[in-house]
Amino acid sequence: MTVENVVDHPPHAAWLPDAAFTAVGRRRVAVLAPDVSGPGARIPAPGPDRSREVLATLHHEVAAATAAHGGAVVGQDEAPDLLLTLLPGPAHPGPPHPGSAPTPPPSPAPARSGFRVVRDDGRVTVSATGPTALLHGFFHVVRQGEDAFTGPDTDETHAPAQALRVLDHWDNVDVHAVMGQVERGYAGGSIFYDDGRVRDDLSRVTAYARLLAAVGIDRVCINNVNVHAREARLLTDDLAEVARIAAALRPYGVRTHLAVSFAAPMTLGGLPTSDPLDDDVRAWWRAAADRVWATIGDFGGFVVKADSEGQPGPFAYGCDHADGANLLAAAVAPHGGVVHWRAFVYDHTQDWRDRSTDRARAAYDHFAPLDGRFADNVVVQVKHGPLDFQTREAVSPVLAAMPRTRLALELQVTQEYTGQQRHACYLGPWWSENLAFRPWGDDGARVADVVAGRGPGPGGGIAAVSNVGDDRFWTGHPLAQANLYAFGRLAWDPALDAADVLDEWVSLTFPGDDGTVDVRVREVLHAVLDDSWHTYESYTAPLGVGFMVRPGHHYGPDVDGYEYTPWGTYHFADRDGIGVDRTRATGTGFTGQYPAPWRDVYESLETCPDELLLFFHHVPWTHVLHSGVTVAQHVYDTHFAGVERVRETVAAWESLAGLVPGDVDTRVRERLAEQLRSATEWRDQLNTYVWRKSGVADAHGRTIY
Amino acid sequence: MTVENVVDHPPHAAWLPDAAFTAVGRRRVAVLAPDVSGPGARIPAPGPDRSREVLATLHHEVAAATAAHGGAVVGQDEAPDLLLTLLPGPAHPGPPHPGSAPTPPPSPAPARSGFRVVRDDGRVTVSATGPTALLHGFFHVVRQGEDAFTGPDTDETHAPAQALRVLDHWDNVDVHAVMGQVERGYAGGSIFYDDGRVRDDLSRVTAYARLLAAVGIDRVCINNVNVHAREARLLTDDLAEVARIAAALRPYGVRTHLAVSFAAPMTLGGLPTSDPLDDDVRAWWRAAADRVWATIGDFGGFVVKADSEGQPGPFAYGCDHADGANLLAAAVAPHGGVVHWRAFVYDHTQDWRDRSTDRARAAYDHFAPLDGRFADNVVVQVKHGPLDFQTREAVSPVLAAMPRTRLALELQVTQEYTGQQRHACYLGPWWSENLAFRPWGDDGARVADVVAGRGPGPGGGIAAVSNVGDDRFWTGHPLAQANLYAFGRLAWDPALDAADVLDEWVSLTFPGDDGTVDVRVREVLHAVLDDSWHTYESYTAPLGVGFMVRPGHHYGPDVDGYEYTPWGTYHFADRDGIGVDRTRATGTGFTGQYPAPWRDVYESLETCPDELLLFFHHVPWTHVLHSGVTVAQHVYDTHFAGVERVRETVAAWESLAGLVPGDVDTRVRERLAEQLRSATEWRDQLNTYVWRKSGVADAHGRTIY
Repeated sequence: MTVENVVDHPPHAAWLPDAAFTAVGRRRVAVLAPDVSGPGARIPAPGPDRSREVLATLHHEVAAATAAHGGAVVGQDEAPDLLLTLLPGPAHPGPPHPGSAPTPPPSPAPARSGFRVVRDDGRVTVSATGPTALLHGFFHVVRQGEDAFTGPDTDETHAPAQALRVLDHWDNVDVHAVMGQVERGYAGGSIFYDDGRVRDDLSRVTAYARLLAAVGIDRVCINNVNVHAREARLLTDDLAEVARIAAALRPYGVRTHLAVSFAAPMTLGGLPTSDPLDDDVRAWWRAAADRVWATIGDFGGFVVKADSEGQPGPFAYGCDHADGANLLAAAVAPHGGVVHWRAFVYDHTQDWRDRSTDRARAAYDHFAPLDGRFADNVVVQVKHGPLDFQTREAVSPVLAAMPRTRLALELQVTQEYTGQQRHACYLGPWWSENLAFRPWGDDGARVADVVAGRGPGPGGGIAAVSNVGDDRFWTGHPLAQANLYAFGRLAWDPALDAADVLDEWVSLTFPGDDGTVDVRVREVLHAVLDDSWHTYESYTAPLGVGFMVRPGHHYGPDVDGYEYTPWGTYHFADRDGIGVDRTRATGTGFTGQYPAPWRDVYESLETCPDELLLFFHHVPWTHVLHSGVTVAQHVYDTHFAGVERVRETVAAWESLAGLVPGDVDTRVRERLAEQLRSATEWRDQLNTYVWRKSGVADAHGRTIY
Repeated sequence: MTVENVVDHPPHAAWLPDAAFTAVGRRRVAVLAPDVSGPGARIPAPGPDRSREVLATLHHEVAAATAAHGGAVVGQDEAPDLLLTLLPGPAHPGPPHPGSAPTPPPSPAPARSGFRVVRDDGRVTVSATGPTALLHGFFHVVRQGEDAFTGPDTDETHAPAQALRVLDHWDNVDVHAVMGQVERGYAGGSIFYDDGRVRDDLSRVTAYARLLAAVGIDRVCINNVNVHAREARLLTDDLAEVARIAAALRPYGVRTHLAVSFAAPMTLGGLPTSDPLDDDVRAWWRAAADRVWATIGDFGGFVVKADSEGQPGPFAYGCDHADGANLLAAAVAPHGGVVHWRAFVYDHTQDWRDRSTDRARAAYDHFAPLDGRFADNVVVQVKHGPLDFQTREAVSPVLAAMPRTRLALELQVTQEYTGQQRHACYLGPWWSENLAFRPWGDDGARVADVVAGRGPGPGGGIAAVSNVGDDRFWTGHPLAQANLYAFGRLAWDPALDAADVLDEWVSLTFPGDDGTVDVRVREVLHAVLDDSWHTYESYTAPLGVGFMVRPGHHYGPDVDGYEYTPWGTYHFADRDGIGVDRTRATGTGFTGQYPAPWRDVYESLETCPDELLLFFHHVPWTHVLHSGVTVAQHVYDTHFAGVERVRETVAAWESLAGLVPGDVDTRVRERLAEQLRSATEWRDQLNTYVWRKSGVADAHGRTIY
């Protein structure tokens, strides 16, 4: 990749530059798929034939790669280096029902969503029973590069751990007066909408779907969970426009979901109520779903934020979340659709003087009692932590509390609380920690198992808020592309090591003209990103206490910014100490929402991990951590060190001058300069705040203002 | 006034209900004015004849009052009870030049802006040499009610202490994305504009001018000093629309001023520069002014906010504020126009870590060195305090530092920092304190003298930001009308007692059908309002420390809200103490900007008044005030007491049920409920903040969270 071709070809290629196809493109490749047309068939015919379209895409990708790099498209009997073959499977199956077993059967027959890779004396055969799975298999080979063809003989099957892997877009059709075009978006406008309508040119959406296919994501919810009046109409009046977006996503096997408003029967349907038990309401939703599927045959389902932060919900009718979710589930069930129902429910009009309410408790208190009452095609979507996507918080106990409910883990790729794509913060390690957490202790299932249906419950997969916009680099900060990449890969296989995933991303994104990455570039990108989440944590809110961000936009420090607000996010710092007492013994009792051993590990000051200390306990500034320093000294030490690490990051990146494309370099430098400024501001505000409040002097006498 | 006629006749009559005219309206009234038509002449003819229009208004007012209350319009030789007579004066004089002596000559010949009142055996004669002055004299008689006719014989002249009395509107033509239709407006939309254009129906503007005439205000600046792109065009493309507003104000003798952008030669004129020393720029401004006066013959002048909070100004060209102001002054001088140039200039991108910069110093540092360099028709408009309209701050030392400059005092009627017209807060006493302040000590001139030209300098009058909008009650909170009333009266006569002014306002605003006010209503309004400014101060930021409001909208408490921001408004609270050290000995040296004795009074902890202690000094929480309690205890005591006073206010108001118009009662009750809620929030946040930080327990053991 040269500077010139990047400048000439916006948008940025992300992890699919031409050079990433070097190894495959040099080979002789055959595609064996019965009854499929060529690339010309990519434009959807009336009544879209999903399989045909995806296979056409595969043909097209193979043809483009081989054309670019000197290989050839050949017949299966012409001794191809790579054979991509669609095996006979269920004819025209509907979308996979979430109830289907996500565990792939043993080799050699892959599950419909998986693929098999056989390498025999340097010749590779990828087979699958579904076109999208075969496309995923193709990108698997692309990802492996030369290694795909040069390794020892092998026979592997690959299937996604999570049957449902969704990216949620908080995109608004109309620019929202407060939240803008994309709520919590830090990468420009929406790729779907421009100021009030679906874009005419959706080529960017197809390019996005291609990036997603290359990491195994196959579902996208295209509008904000805060469904405003204009956006609500996507479900009805603007269904034809939604169908255009679905058509743009389809060639790469990506299904479309819609966020809907629980009040839609009233606001769109003119009914006097949205009562989930009302027959007219049920009929309205059934008719609405029928229309959607009649228009978009491979539509995925609905996403709902109900009775949360002002969104309407079933509470208004004396009903609960199970009643609400099941209403929609019944409407979409005939079509194999799924309802993602968010568990992000809490009192956002709390009184800071009220110490009896604890926002961390809210999701469990609302949802755990409903376990077993949700329909099979409802997925309860649970934020990874009990608060709100903080840089560090405990894992949500809801994930261990609903064994009879399909649970999904919700992550946030968009960096609302982790630097807003101005700070380099690679979230792979943080997500890995969440996925690997074992709520029942060392012998129990991991969170990744729970949502995969390999734990005590049926599993609902994984979802995340996308970080993509119409920015030239997709994600504002070019290095934030790594987060989108890592989300896809960890959703497919949560056991992957985050640093290995980053390495894949580097290999794909920064190849030289020969398709390989300069060793210095690889080293520096690891140095910049591998530990960047810990670096970000080190100069922001300490020890799991969370927030301390500027209210509203959530960027930059404001230690007391949320301390006296209705949002339920307090740290209770005074001259003596800081932290939230969430113990059963003396606090809010939140620790009791965990099964053993964590209910006890977190309860005790002796065993509570340092990094979550202030999430679970209120302690004196002079409390000595397991690390051996006081809380106050920890703040000073980590904040001084964090800024130094950012300085090192800046220097490391600058050493790459000339080794990375100029436009990427320029943008990254701009962002790093802002990161250093902002980290310094965080350091100084936090240190000054703690010093002013605690009076504990820095042991090393550094400058605190 | 009955409930019914209020409901039937929006907008609210404020201090000019029909009943206020009872005493005059029962009399036989004659108007003696040569060469003037009747009421029908109020619609301006081409080439407006200002004198004719104002006299027509006077005829109309007299006719309406007498018709409503049983009196009669009679000839001067028919023994009128009230004779209003226009004396020969300078024929068609231009607008009063601010250089004209503001001191009225001794009776019997009143200055053109003043009037003479003679009462002889119950017959009253009001005379003036100008129609607007005669109109003001008429409203003087209205204000006096029966007392005008029943007192002992008298011969008085009344002339405004301040030659220039201006209300500034921070109204935007377009709704601003952040600041709305009216910046810092708390009374609905603009009376001038509606969402992007001048209103078709400007009757409300004329009604406003009538209210202003009744308190002696004769100049209004009709647009925001933050001049955005749309608003800039009022000076050029939309001059015809400005002329419509001027025509709506003119019948009541109110002149129109415009806020203009210093960058106008570039943004409107297409010039490559706005350099004040550039000939093309000077020519552009002269031509612009010529066009304005050609369109609006009695136009007043320009108001400019330059090099302040992002507004353009002369600094970009290496020039100073005198260069900038004199540029515009030269353009308007041929027309007798005046330039109000604001001294509100400071660094709004300050680094909180920088203790060497003190925003309080800024206006003096910028302007005092320029004394003597401003043209005669420039008025440097100085906010009353060195910060920004706080509930309590020291008087600006600029007012004592520029004896060769025409200085105006700028007040804020709109309650940005004093409860935003949700809290009852009568500001008359606060303004009186500012006006009566003697910068040179007991024997020196007062601020009121300085701006009236009775002190060491030529005087530039008084200006204030209006609190009026298209709200039915004009001011959101009906009781906030009293602030607009009081501003007008104190601008006319700063020696008036604020409680007396309030009493006037009560008499005019709450008359019964017989024109007199129920004694209980009068008592309660005094109880609610007389001390309401002190009450508001008692539950908000203590001891002159200022701010502690929510950033951005400035409503409600956020003690640390501005502590780490670039705005230069810090309190430096830590576990040991609070306050800003502005002494010469150890602080920013701001005290040195005052002449003796204040430079020493403020410098010393022994003599600094309690109410300004934290404005001038950083002291321990345990510092004992002159009042005998510690700073911490003072916060607790005043905040608990403040909420109790609000409770008493609520109870007092509720005792008026049935004695005030129902719509006023309803609105006031709504506002009082919010005031009580907000005051409680202020109390609890301030007390908790101080308790958490200081560890000083409340001596009385009250609840602190």
